[in-house]
Amino acid sequence: MTSSNNLRVNEQRLAERLEDLAVIGRGDQGGLIRVAYTDADLKGREYAIRQMGEAALEVSVDAAGNILGRRAGSGAALPPILFGSHIDSVPEGGNYDGSLGSLASIECAHALEDAGLVTRHPLEIVIFANEEGGLTGSRAMVGEFLSSELDQVSQSGFTHREGIKRLGGDPDNLPQARRKPGTVKAYLELHVEQGGILEESGITIGVVEGIVGIRCEEVTIEGEANHAGTTPMARRKDALLVASKVIQSVNETATSTPGTQVATVGRIEVLPGAPNIIPGQVVMTIEVRDLSQQKIEALTERMITKAKSFAREAGVKIRVRQSSDNLAAPTDPVMRHLVEESARALGLSFRYMPSGAGHDAQNLARIAPVGMIFVPSVGGISHSPEEHTRHQDLTHGANVLLGTILRVDAGPKL
Amino acid sequence: MTSSNNLRVNEQRLAERLEDLAVIGRGDQGGLIRVAYTDADLKGREYAIRQMGEAALEVSVDAAGNILGRRAGSGAALPPILFGSHIDSVPEGGNYDGSLGSLASIECAHALEDAGLVTRHPLEIVIFANEEGGLTGSRAMVGEFLSSELDQVSQSGFTHREGIKRLGGDPDNLPQARRKPGTVKAYLELHVEQGGILEESGITIGVVEGIVGIRCEEVTIEGEANHAGTTPMARRKDALLVASKVIQSVNETATSTPGTQVATVGRIEVLPGAPNIIPGQVVMTIEVRDLSQQKIEALTERMITKAKSFAREAGVKIRVRQSSDNLAAPTDPVMRHLVEESARALGLSFRYMPSGAGHDAQNLARIAPVGMIFVPSVGGISHSPEEHTRHQDLTHGANVLLGTILRVDAGPKL
Repeated sequence: MTSSNNLRVNEQRLAERLEDLAVIGRGDQGGLIRVAYTDADLKGREYAIRQMGEAALEVSVDAAGNILGRRAGSGAALPPILFGSHIDSVPEGGNYDGSLGSLASIECAHALEDAGLVTRHPLEIVIFANEEGGLTGSRAMVGEFLSSELDQVSQSGFTHREGIKRLGGDPDNLPQARRKPGTVKAYLELHVEQGGILEESGITIGVVEGIVGIRCEEVTIEGEANHAGTTPMARRKDALLVASKVIQSVNETATSTPGTQVATVGRIEVLPGAPNIIPGQVVMTIEVRDLSQQKIEALTERMITKAKSFAREAGVKIRVRQSSDNLAAPTDPVMRHLVEESARALGLSFRYMPSGAGHDAQNLARIAPVGMIFVPSVGGISHSPEEHTRHQDLTHGANVLLGTILRVDAGPKL
Repeated sequence: MTSSNNLRVNEQRLAERLEDLAVIGRGDQGGLIRVAYTDADLKGREYAIRQMGEAALEVSVDAAGNILGRRAGSGAALPPILFGSHIDSVPEGGNYDGSLGSLASIECAHALEDAGLVTRHPLEIVIFANEEGGLTGSRAMVGEFLSSELDQVSQSGFTHREGIKRLGGDPDNLPQARRKPGTVKAYLELHVEQGGILEESGITIGVVEGIVGIRCEEVTIEGEANHAGTTPMARRKDALLVASKVIQSVNETATSTPGTQVATVGRIEVLPGAPNIIPGQVVMTIEVRDLSQQKIEALTERMITKAKSFAREAGVKIRVRQSSDNLAAPTDPVMRHLVEESARALGLSFRYMPSGAGHDAQNLARIAPVGMIFVPSVGGISHSPEEHTRHQDLTHGANVLLGTILRVDAGPKL
């Protein structure tokens, strides 16, 4: 290993940087509004770039607007170890989602700089562009961002083309941002859990097994809108009554199977939607998430089969169309092991767990071995001004990140 | 009885008048758009007034804009027998809802005139103002229309005050339209069923037992909106999952009890309403209709009790508030009997049944004995350009109305 096992991040400096960044884009209601491409996002990026400079990183912005901070390695022609996160936020978001991973990554480089240690592999810290608005930067890095998306308007009001230009990127030359498989040694990301599993079980470090796949189906049920007074119960074709069976059955299917899969009916629209008219049409979503793509498919199929049988029994029509499908992105088994080893070396409790939320890491998994580290979110709250991670957990997470970087650098076969 | 049992309406004349009226307000899409207070409504009323004149009726318009056509009786100081309906329509409505009862009432008077028969009681044919937009005319006639409603905007775009003026009424003197209990011998209304019960059972005449009461409750379920990826199934407080149990239980409660009651969840709104967020809030309606006010209350209470127990089990909050309550308006038992007798005398099949839809008759029930006659709607369709009643059923209905008027006039104790 390049370094002593005793190297630690500067706890105070990390905490101060998190505090500094947390005021950039602070809204009147107390939440963070640092939506990608906005002035607040630009200011946050300027701050991050300054801190990269202080950590002696060589800063550049790629064609997709991703910020890169490079630290040379001692080994000639070795591929870089990439690690980072994002600093854009949802509207009224919190202080740790993305910011922790970004600033902890800078801090790892800074700690190495302070200690005068040089890794074999070059290190590259990345702050991805527009994570919250569709993982734009990481998708561009793996060649999955379509140029046809450039003229779509983002949440900032700017198109992606305009937004990427504002970030200092070059939207007309996106392929320049692309990294080919094998050109990156590994990608690592530290993130707050955004759920309540770690906090509830009193565990400090989540060894992320992967980012779950997400399959979303749109189900349309066509009954008959009819007068709620003159249509006897036995003559009704109530689309909402059928939908209510589907909602229950989706829940039963998800909860009766062992595992950590989740299934949600989050959107439902009922037409015509008057108290005195029997619902004629329902459009609803069924979203299933799991680490196993096979399981997602099997569960979704079971849910749809049941929904169709409810529709048949009730004599109503049903249409199902897949509205989205994000493939599951398992982390690399060796990387998981190195995260675990780093946690053990620091005497920290850990558990293996899926990430139910999406992350830039899921895209990087297409070109490199990926590892992800979670720290607890108090109350499981995220995407909210209430989002909070305890001070010591921030430090623990950063130290596990540092330990893992050094272990990757030591060169296990990935 | 004042007349021979052989008196019949003029089938041809009634059919022609229905055809004439059906073109007034005909929209481009084939539906009838004769919304109250609009120019089309005014034209329809002019037509009806002309026909009243042809039937030798003495026409006036009361302060609420109701058209009244009076035919003197032979008995001094007897209260009038009132019968009629409305000619305003919903947007894209049909040709029979209201029009049949209005023109058949004029035809009954016309047939008496042709036969030279004079009833003991005066006859008053009424065409109520703005039935579809809230039973305005009949509510004013029984003193239930509030002057505070006058400045509310109706579907026509006019306020009720403006609209009533357009009809020739006097909105500043609405109490002049009021009839006190005991001043009307009886109220009779012929109407199309607007449901499919008569047609399905092959029966010609519905002896209406009453206009059902309608109780509507607004139920708000407060769960926790959470990330659909990071919140394990066991930690969820899914408001929609609870709502789906309520929807099923409302249906079960309504269908497992003997009787003709109906219950409907017609409106449901789910927040925040995204496929990837667990529903945090649901607002839904539960509407119960029956002829028995007691039954409405008992069923509603059972449904709410169950809803609350589902909420308790799921650890979510629930609030229930009554959003409307139209009392059931039973028809008069003697009037039902006279309708039945009239149907029998004509050799027509009949059945007793509730009216699931609201009608002006429900207001008149507050001041006089009320009788209502239904004829079949093909396919149970109403409030639609597809609304249709077969020619012979129109005639049968009008003859039952005439027979009932004469039977009421003959003077049973009401």
